[in-house]
Amino acid sequence: MSNRVKQLPDFIQKLIAEFDKLPSVGPKSAAKLVFNLLHRKEDLKILANHLNEAYNHVHSCPQCFNLTDKGLCRICSDPNRNKKIICVVSQNQDVEAIEKTNQFNGYYHLLNGLLNPLEGTTPDKLKIKELVQRIEENGIKEIILALDQSMEGEATVLYLKKLLRNYPVEISQLARGIPMGANIEYTDEATLSSALENRKKL
Amino acid sequence: MSNRVKQLPDFIQKLIAEFDKLPSVGPKSAAKLVFNLLHRKEDLKILANHLNEAYNHVHSCPQCFNLTDKGLCRICSDPNRNKKIICVVSQNQDVEAIEKTNQFNGYYHLLNGLLNPLEGTTPDKLKIKELVQRIEENGIKEIILALDQSMEGEATVLYLKKLLRNYPVEISQLARGIPMGANIEYTDEATLSSALENRKKL
Repeated sequence: MSNRVKQLPDFIQKLIAEFDKLPSVGPKSAAKLVFNLLHRKEDLKILANHLNEAYNHVHSCPQCFNLTDKGLCRICSDPNRNKKIICVVSQNQDVEAIEKTNQFNGYYHLLNGLLNPLEGTTPDKLKIKELVQRIEENGIKEIILALDQSMEGEATVLYLKKLLRNYPVEISQLARGIPMGANIEYTDEATLSSALENRKKL
Repeated sequence: MSNRVKQLPDFIQKLIAEFDKLPSVGPKSAAKLVFNLLHRKEDLKILANHLNEAYNHVHSCPQCFNLTDKGLCRICSDPNRNKKIICVVSQNQDVEAIEKTNQFNGYYHLLNGLLNPLEGTTPDKLKIKELVQRIEENGIKEIILALDQSMEGEATVLYLKKLLRNYPVEISQLARGIPMGANIEYTDEATLSSALENRKKL
């Protein structure tokens, strides 16, 4: 913390510094979170215990790279899912978002990021080699790319499309179009173009 | 969490639920913070340790009610400050904000909130009795009310002003006026009125 205050006890400064490292949390809101917690001592204890438990047990699933406290994660160890389809996502939260739809019954593969050469995220930094290995070894028939609609997402889609061309696997990506609740008037041109191009017969 | 996802391991759900309790953190950002931490295992451990340390040592200073891990807090145990002036604030963060100005050399008194009868914060819920006791016992000469410019702040100022009328103590509140960097055009009427009324001769 740059604007460290000399009167604040060390233990509070240390806590604020840790909260300050979290994404979208600045020093002011870190202080707010810490003081809130310090006034709820039982919750403070519970949070410390849960963090310790997580520290001792969390690891990446050796198959899909989702976080888990079991050997394989819950999804990879579920025998009732379709073994021939893999949905490729960039991060943990995306798995939960797709699971909530109840529309996908295959397995997942986490890349742990998206290609971004300028920030040093080159293909070897992502779990791409492991994806290819799963395709080769498990007779995967279909790969669904569920990646963000961003420069990095697009770059990753292009890279994977080219790489996987040599494998007998069907590749698709999530449909682009107008999101629920959107007004045509305020929809950006790229989205509207995609929605027109991919229009669906009624 | 209402939209609890069945595939998320228990230990992650428990962590998200704890972060979700923090002010201005919703379930989505709680998940974001937790997944970020789970990917930084050493920081996770450090945070757990700091929280445990805080749990074991934090308490309210028996004199001013600021949080501390010592007997008296650092400010109350500093003999070089002016013992005759008390700055009354509502919460911990306000102490730090005032300390940063380097303009105040007295002691503090935390009310631990502001009057808000509708939400159940009546005078007996605040550290007002203890403030009166300090004034009576320590020969305090001046009380500076440094409270928020809100309905609750105003109500608390009025209540304390009336209550302390019977004590031989000077009472002041922070000056109202135009904040640094503000445009006259966009300053609200109440602030502008105060600034006019309290105009300063050059």
